[in-house]
Amino acid sequence: MVRVGIINVTGYAGAELARLLHAHPEAQLTGVSGRSAAGKPLAEVFPHLACYDLTIGEEVGDVDFVFSALPHAASAEAVAPLVRAGVPVVDISADFRLRDPQEYAQWYGVEHPAPDLLPRAVYGLTELNREAVRTSRLIANPGCYPESALLALAPAVKQGVIGPDVIIDSKSGISGAGRALGLTYHFAEADESVSAYGLAGHRHLPEMVQELAAMWPPAGATKSGRPKVTFTPHLIPMTRGILSTCYAPLAQGTVRSGEEIRELYQEFYRGEPFVRVVDSPPATKHVSGSNMCLVYPTVDPRTERLVVVSVIDNLVKGAAGQAIQNMNAMLGLPETTGLEAPAVYP
Amino acid sequence: MVRVGIINVTGYAGAELARLLHAHPEAQLTGVSGRSAAGKPLAEVFPHLACYDLTIGEEVGDVDFVFSALPHAASAEAVAPLVRAGVPVVDISADFRLRDPQEYAQWYGVEHPAPDLLPRAVYGLTELNREAVRTSRLIANPGCYPESALLALAPAVKQGVIGPDVIIDSKSGISGAGRALGLTYHFAEADESVSAYGLAGHRHLPEMVQELAAMWPPAGATKSGRPKVTFTPHLIPMTRGILSTCYAPLAQGTVRSGEEIRELYQEFYRGEPFVRVVDSPPATKHVSGSNMCLVYPTVDPRTERLVVVSVIDNLVKGAAGQAIQNMNAMLGLPETTGLEAPAVYP
Amino acid sequence: MVRVGIINVTGYAGAELARLLHAHPEAQLTGVSGRSAAGKPLAEVFPHLACYDLTIGEEVGDVDFVFSALPHAASAEAVAPLVRAGVPVVDISADFRLRDPQEYAQWYGVEHPAPDLLPRAVYGLTELNREAVRTSRLIANPGCYPESALLALAPAVKQGVIGPDVIIDSKSGISGAGRALGLTYHFAEADESVSAYGLAGHRHLPEMVQELAAMWPPAGATKSGRPKVTFTPHLIPMTRGILSTCYAPLAQGTVRSGEEIRELYQEFYRGEPFVRVVDSPPATKHVSGSNMCLVYPTVDPRTERLVVVSVIDNLVKGAAGQAIQNMNAMLGLPETTGLEAPAVYP
Amino acid sequence: MVRVGIINVTGYAGAELARLLHAHPEAQLTGVSGRSAAGKPLAEVFPHLACYDLTIGEEVGDVDFVFSALPHAASAEAVAPLVRAGVPVVDISADFRLRDPQEYAQWYGVEHPAPDLLPRAVYGLTELNREAVRTSRLIANPGCYPESALLALAPAVKQGVIGPDVIIDSKSGISGAGRALGLTYHFAEADESVSAYGLAGHRHLPEMVQELAAMWPPAGATKSGRPKVTFTPHLIPMTRGILSTCYAPLAQGTVRSGEEIRELYQEFYRGEPFVRVVDSPPATKHVSGSNMCLVYPTVDPRTERLVVVSVIDNLVKGAAGQAIQNMNAMLGLPETTGLEAPAVYP
Repeated sequence: MVRVGIINVTGYAGAELARLLHAHPEAQLTGVSGRSAAGKPLAEVFPHLACYDLTIGEEVGDVDFVFSALPHAASAEAVAPLVRAGVPVVDISADFRLRDPQEYAQWYGVEHPAPDLLPRAVYGLTELNREAVRTSRLIANPGCYPESALLALAPAVKQGVIGPDVIIDSKSGISGAGRALGLTYHFAEADESVSAYGLAGHRHLPEMVQELAAMWPPAGATKSGRPKVTFTPHLIPMTRGILSTCYAPLAQGTVRSGEEIRELYQEFYRGEPFVRVVDSPPATKHVSGSNMCLVYPTVDPRTERLVVVSVIDNLVKGAAGQAIQNMNAMLGLPETTGLEAPAVYP
Repeated sequence: MVRVGIINVTGYAGAELARLLHAHPEAQLTGVSGRSAAGKPLAEVFPHLACYDLTIGEEVGDVDFVFSALPHAASAEAVAPLVRAGVPVVDISADFRLRDPQEYAQWYGVEHPAPDLLPRAVYGLTELNREAVRTSRLIANPGCYPESALLALAPAVKQGVIGPDVIIDSKSGISGAGRALGLTYHFAEADESVSAYGLAGHRHLPEMVQELAAMWPPAGATKSGRPKVTFTPHLIPMTRGILSTCYAPLAQGTVRSGEEIRELYQEFYRGEPFVRVVDSPPATKHVSGSNMCLVYPTVDPRTERLVVVSVIDNLVKGAAGQAIQNMNAMLGLPETTGLEAPAVYP
Repeated sequence: MVRVGIINVTGYAGAELARLLHAHPEAQLTGVSGRSAAGKPLAEVFPHLACYDLTIGEEVGDVDFVFSALPHAASAEAVAPLVRAGVPVVDISADFRLRDPQEYAQWYGVEHPAPDLLPRAVYGLTELNREAVRTSRLIANPGCYPESALLALAPAVKQGVIGPDVIIDSKSGISGAGRALGLTYHFAEADESVSAYGLAGHRHLPEMVQELAAMWPPAGATKSGRPKVTFTPHLIPMTRGILSTCYAPLAQGTVRSGEEIRELYQEFYRGEPFVRVVDSPPATKHVSGSNMCLVYPTVDPRTERLVVVSVIDNLVKGAAGQAIQNMNAMLGLPETTGLEAPAVYP
Repeated sequence: MVRVGIINVTGYAGAELARLLHAHPEAQLTGVSGRSAAGKPLAEVFPHLACYDLTIGEEVGDVDFVFSALPHAASAEAVAPLVRAGVPVVDISADFRLRDPQEYAQWYGVEHPAPDLLPRAVYGLTELNREAVRTSRLIANPGCYPESALLALAPAVKQGVIGPDVIIDSKSGISGAGRALGLTYHFAEADESVSAYGLAGHRHLPEMVQELAAMWPPAGATKSGRPKVTFTPHLIPMTRGILSTCYAPLAQGTVRSGEEIRELYQEFYRGEPFVRVVDSPPATKHVSGSNMCLVYPTVDPRTERLVVVSVIDNLVKGAAGQAIQNMNAMLGLPETTGLEAPAVYP
């Protein structure tokens, strides 16, 4: 039994890790930390976690595996000594996602706390990076928006089916903003309303561009070697879920129909337990609470554009579930271990 | 491995049974029926149940245990031959809840299809009726409102703490109305709105009265032998969850304070895995997707009234979860088998 | 044209006053204050109020009529000099609702800032107190819960139809908690959830008891002269609206049926423009954005209890609309002036 | 006083017309029809319209002006004799929007019932078509999605700022689907979920293409004379509101910055009472219940794309409000007559 610790259990990603680990037959949650709530029973802060007899501590104690759900910068600081000591870590923060520390500094407004560890980090989108994940001891768990967009676009990009003009229009539930307070997230403000944000540049954009560029075939990319990505996130009045609608022009001489593109996607994801290519547009409700990603690729024949719709639960496949999937891969367990629960519907 | 069938898997209770059974280590769902969708793959009707490779049939086939999620009357007709053949059945419909077939006819508007089976049926509120459940082969699974109200009131009633003037004010999410269409359940009508219904008499009222009367101590009851219960259900704009607020006058010379009543409740439910007496008012979100019932009893000292608030997920503890708990008890398994998943929060 | 000022326009009640006054043909909003936002254009803080070319000030300036939407204590301090200077004031805070300054201190935890003005204040439930409102220059606008409960119960109380054991179970949208931040009001926490609060005693309780006691007929009341009221408010996942379900035993020898009680209510509210007695249970959506109160009285014949359901928009009939209705009465205008807009449905 | 009739008042657009007309000083609603509810008082079908003492009829009777809120095909059939008799009509259905009856037949699956009237019809996007609207007697009121997208794109298109590769990603509340029943609109299915639909081609697409093509400058358009538009509508869990996010490449040598594009838009919409160009991304809540459209244009400098976000209330500016604005223009009244009410926020 692997002893697992969660650093900063008091946010939504941390609590979701605890929820999911309860079903894991090979891992046992033995330590949880959280600065503001240190000393309190976990069940007091989160009544739904009364199944655990744990007290929130300053540290996670002696464990075999660590998840960090701290905010960026704080997370790298907290996990750096653990990584150096050889403890395997999945970092849910953004700290080890961007390979270039200068780009990190530009987007996050702070110097990277542990740039020397960046070369060791592996971007933990397991489906696209499985071999590297298995042998890594420091995983940068993907952001929730990149998770949904990269799974939606990867087959088309890797098969050279699309040109570089990519638009990603994402719709997220409000738990994606975390548990911190803000007028935008006040029920009376967020309810019955939808708005766009981050139009001047959201922090998940460079992550998407980095990963798309890395998988882009040489001829299809722009001169700079990077696809031209516009990303617009939106807040919609629900708690969980992200739907991303991705647009790109079809490259000449490739697929032309929805049937063709769905076959290509089905082939690409054949055997993947957590990605399902579906025949009709999916709803986020179909994946709520589960680690599934449903992908619906199609073609707009009037404009010869690829349109792909993907749905995930932002707290599971977009955070804690993906993190446990990475842990499973790192530990040599079947990736589905502890993650088999179907979505909670309706 | 027990082979399990679900009759009428296509409603919310049926689908929820399938979802929960997926985590059950001793039971395997082998047959699902549903008239309107017969012949379709289960995964087509319910994308979240793609984990099953099952086709919806006309019948559930050869199974060791049956859940019926049919509407009333149809359910008794369907399960009667099974019961007579010795197959253990948990009936989620109302058909075997009322012991008096005339009362059934009065409230449900049809003659009972199998009155001869009524004496064999046990009311499956496991916490209050455990021994009878264990030896029964026909369980009447409680209605969702009675489940929430009876767990809230049982300790006070059985300890003789309250007088007979009981008011139960319940607030339910809209999945309680089922998957059938109706203007009341149209999103644009139900959203941002709350309304009371069933004021002339809801079908769950006689069920509550029957069970409360049965547990009422002789001296405390009214002359007719039955407590005087007013029950008002309300529809609120959420999908899952019931909160019941129950009021009754304190009997003279019994408990006087919130602390005393909470102690009494904690003692009553000590060791129960699915009922937790809490120290502050609970929210339905604390139990969503799980089989837990949280109960908060207190006293209004200004009026010497007991006020008890209980919360459940209407589709789990109020239907499918309770049904599986009953199955576990009937099969001699630990009642928690397959039902350990914490609530999905937030 | 009456020049109107709103003190503390930056909360929901203040903003709602501004919204409603825009339709008022005899009043012109000329001054708005709000400490935290002083200096900002009103349209910047509230984009929906861009119809006004007003800047939020420290004071409301020279006006003929003042609404205060400040929190309690701060409100009495702010309006006391205005009242003493003869400016007519409607105070939306709780400061002038309780006639007894000691009771005020007990419930609100501060000494009353201007107890000398209490005798001048009139409780502004216009329908029940019309003559006093017309001649007053200091109106205590009712709390949102008392507004809904008193309109629901007044006909029965005044006609001596019920006994003193009153239970008020209210369900409120989240705007009732105001615009201040709190984890309870975070969308991800409040959405898809319902909870009870204030069980140890909500501040609107003494207000209800005071007003019910004042209208109670001598013989029907308890020895202490006060009805025995239990009040439980609940937060439900919607923005606007309160539904109150009120229970009381029918007094012997009075009405016995729903038809009788509805006739009595219809007679009581005949000619009232903002209270409508309806024939079937109402929904809050029927009054959203409007100054209407719908009341549905009925009888539970099994228990001989009166059950009354009322619905209002908590920000209109429960706050700003009632305040403008009071202003109209004070100014000798038809009470409906500026308040005719139907509810926004769906 | 103009006597107004509403054909098919029983849907959401019809009911919204009645709601808004109540505030109109120059128009009086004198007749309402609706096949299924004929003979019922309007207040029975819609409790929020109890302000009207009208009975729903088979016909609207003798009126000076007609709004039709019938479904397509039925609408043209119903209004054709009125138009021929000289009665001014605003048709909220799609029947007179597409100028080519063959395109109509292709998208709507029926022959156009009155193709001879098509040349008389004017597309009633008042802001873009004011002079024609004023002199017309048959207005095709725009679809809700085209309304939001055309107002978002018109300034950029007319000023030649963008290339023809246009993507419109729209998010709509569920009232846009109307009052008819369907599993997709059941609260338990739609709540806490988002989905895309109409990916194979939504009926509002040809309307957008027709109007964009008509305003496109010769050099900027594609060879076929039509911009290449991909349109993806999404259903989100709220009742009212549409947010459209529109993307297009900037044409070479035109505007480069968000400031420049906002100036261009402000100049374009200067003096328009119902379109406001805003400095930060708007929320649908800012316009709920009102006839306002807020437009936020910006530039993604990394990709040299125009991104425009617009918000409307789909039932007001997207249907009934726009219809009344058209009526006002046709009658020579100020366009704002009866439409001044601010949004209902929060």
